[in-house]
Amino acid sequence: MVDRAETPLNRRRFLSAAGLAGAGLATGALPSRAAEPDAAITDVQDWNRYLGEGVQAHPYGSPSKYEKNVVRRDVEWLTASRESSVNFTPLHALDGNVTPSGLAFERHHGGIADIDPAKHRLMIHGLVDKPLVFTMDDLKRFPGRVHKLYFLECAANSGMEWRGAQLNGCQFTHGMIHNVWYTGVSLRSLLEQAGVKTNAKWLLAEGGDASMMTRSIPLQKALDDCIIAWGMNGEALRPEQGYPVRLVVPGWEGNMWIKWLRRLELGDEPWQAREETSKYTDLLADGRSRRFTYIMDAKSVVTNPSPQAPLLHKGPNVLSGIAWSGRGRIERVDVSLDGGRNWRTARLEGPVLSRSMTRFYVDFDWDGRELLVQSRAMDETGYVQPTKNELRAVRGVNSIYHNNGVQTWFVHKNGETENVEIS
Amino acid sequence: MVDRAETPLNRRRFLSAAGLAGAGLATGALPSRAAEPDAAITDVQDWNRYLGEGVQAHPYGSPSKYEKNVVRRDVEWLTASRESSVNFTPLHALDGNVTPSGLAFERHHGGIADIDPAKHRLMIHGLVDKPLVFTMDDLKRFPGRVHKLYFLECAANSGMEWRGAQLNGCQFTHGMIHNVWYTGVSLRSLLEQAGVKTNAKWLLAEGGDASMMTRSIPLQKALDDCIIAWGMNGEALRPEQGYPVRLVVPGWEGNMWIKWLRRLELGDEPWQAREETSKYTDLLADGRSRRFTYIMDAKSVVTNPSPQAPLLHKGPNVLSGIAWSGRGRIERVDVSLDGGRNWRTARLEGPVLSRSMTRFYVDFDWDGRELLVQSRAMDETGYVQPTKNELRAVRGVNSIYHNNGVQTWFVHKNGETENVEIS
Repeated sequence: MVDRAETPLNRRRFLSAAGLAGAGLATGALPSRAAEPDAAITDVQDWNRYLGEGVQAHPYGSPSKYEKNVVRRDVEWLTASRESSVNFTPLHALDGNVTPSGLAFERHHGGIADIDPAKHRLMIHGLVDKPLVFTMDDLKRFPGRVHKLYFLECAANSGMEWRGAQLNGCQFTHGMIHNVWYTGVSLRSLLEQAGVKTNAKWLLAEGGDASMMTRSIPLQKALDDCIIAWGMNGEALRPEQGYPVRLVVPGWEGNMWIKWLRRLELGDEPWQAREETSKYTDLLADGRSRRFTYIMDAKSVVTNPSPQAPLLHKGPNVLSGIAWSGRGRIERVDVSLDGGRNWRTARLEGPVLSRSMTRFYVDFDWDGRELLVQSRAMDETGYVQPTKNELRAVRGVNSIYHNNGVQTWFVHKNGETENVEIS
Repeated sequence: MVDRAETPLNRRRFLSAAGLAGAGLATGALPSRAAEPDAAITDVQDWNRYLGEGVQAHPYGSPSKYEKNVVRRDVEWLTASRESSVNFTPLHALDGNVTPSGLAFERHHGGIADIDPAKHRLMIHGLVDKPLVFTMDDLKRFPGRVHKLYFLECAANSGMEWRGAQLNGCQFTHGMIHNVWYTGVSLRSLLEQAGVKTNAKWLLAEGGDASMMTRSIPLQKALDDCIIAWGMNGEALRPEQGYPVRLVVPGWEGNMWIKWLRRLELGDEPWQAREETSKYTDLLADGRSRRFTYIMDAKSVVTNPSPQAPLLHKGPNVLSGIAWSGRGRIERVDVSLDGGRNWRTARLEGPVLSRSMTRFYVDFDWDGRELLVQSRAMDETGYVQPTKNELRAVRGVNSIYHNNGVQTWFVHKNGETENVEIS
């Protein structure tokens, strides 16, 4: 292995160094090996000797059997029942910025409603000129269809970490999030058709599942950028994401994105529903609560390396992670390998969109020493992701909501990685 | 129904007209109904009476049972065996511009290779300074990881239509295409490590499947924008898309995007492999052939309405479709409802990226008369998608490749839609 001190981190410099020094020496440090005949090559490359499976086996395709461990997972002790529970996105096994639909975080309060789209109706009523009911067909032929990529993050994402490092894997510390494309119509256009009365200030959204989930949404947000969505990543919404129709509330906490949406009521004050009073208010150290804390502030996490994706090799490695902000675009992500003493700016790859996950990479050489890996997001408003201790100083540790502090992973000399706190 | 002549097509004008005329009259023409108590509403909205399925039922999620008809399909008579066959993307049932992995077009010549990624190797040899072999781990920690969205279109897409309208559904006429995100490293960076000799002009890519698919690629393209990709839409490549690693050749015909990639050989001339001589050359009317016709020219198709997605309602409707070009970005898409006499410019929604599918919409009112629906794409080079007859005048009808002519759908008075030719 080439020692880190001798190895330029920049690939272009590295490659031209290789050109100067001769291929034998310098290219040996990039991940590859000389093409000598060896058992690994001559023995195993015989896939072509066997006719593979044909096309009709896969009218709707699935991942390879070798990827069977890349699945959503719950944490058994977290909830009392499967019907009111959580399945976490396997962030450590994903790349890019769009979450595959089959691996997208799910949270239910009464199980997955089983709704026939032909019979489903969405009603708009309350403080409107003309109450309206929409079939799914009505929605799909409404003028002004939109297609947008947004992150949905549960307010309780990283909630177990307020009191210290708890869960060993970014799937569990940060996996209550997904980032998918939505197809639908703007909520504003439907409300305009119903005619919102001038005294209306709030909107109640109600789900058709067994929990009859309800949340109050300020009218200003409803008229701004909310979407009534029936599509997800190009196809129909998945059942666990609200099939046949859900509310999309960009940048705001996931609980408000009512699934299996059946009713929108206009009113002049919030409804004080269970999920915005006893839940989703943030208990402070002095016993008071923050309420209506809707916006998800800027946050990031390194997904590789992480406890479920340790470092396997010395030499060149690719560090990767995701960043997002409920207030707009991600402007920059910095990464530290030494617990926040030194930072380098990561490369953002792929689309950088408002209120959408952004992927970042840092190429680095690992010489086998211990690392304290962190990332820190900055959004277009100038907001900088705080440390966990900075957050605790202001908010205490009573809440389980809105923990967007900097995550630290400790990489051991053998490459194993664990969730740690640093002071 | 409001007659089309009386109904402004523009939604904003429409809505302000509604405001002036009173809600009762004008909003009735937008898709919705008054919220009167009726059997459909009071009888069926009882989903909330039943506890739904819990989270562990879906570690890797699937579509709703109500979407069971949204699947890839083959055309049984098209190929002699399942192992050398085609499954078509259900374009009429999709939206946005990214194809869901489970619904992405597949084409195999020896079935789906079953490859253990831990044992797979990719070799680079031939006219290089230093032959190299890469494990999957080597590739995944190679510096400079990229993440890109590109369309892959089979050169034979729409190939049955050269001699006239054949297949009744855009899934079959245009479904040999998908548009997905790729994670990988640039082919250039791997070739730079191996050191390409100055006399090298071509590159052979070979697959590890039973057909040992091989194609020759000009070195200039290999060094330009090709990707060695292991990821697709955020997760691992699907088996039918070349798991664990494939070649991505942006804008060029799909057959060159070698799947199950195991070998790259540098040489000084093309290899004249079966798939670039007896196949994938374009037989002209005079018996000569065009060869090395790699680039997929600009093309588009209306996906809704189309034979598998007829018009169901008079009044407001959303026309939707996709456009793409192997030469760059889509600049504009025009749509005609009367067989090309009058055109209106469609609205492009979502990202408009180079050599990537672009989604377009046109809101229109349908009064129940017959329509001849067409779309015509223009790309950033100024190229305009030709009519089929313009293509035939130049290329004849002997080839099954590179048919990018304008598609016509005939909408009957009852909304049923069929594939037709117009002179």
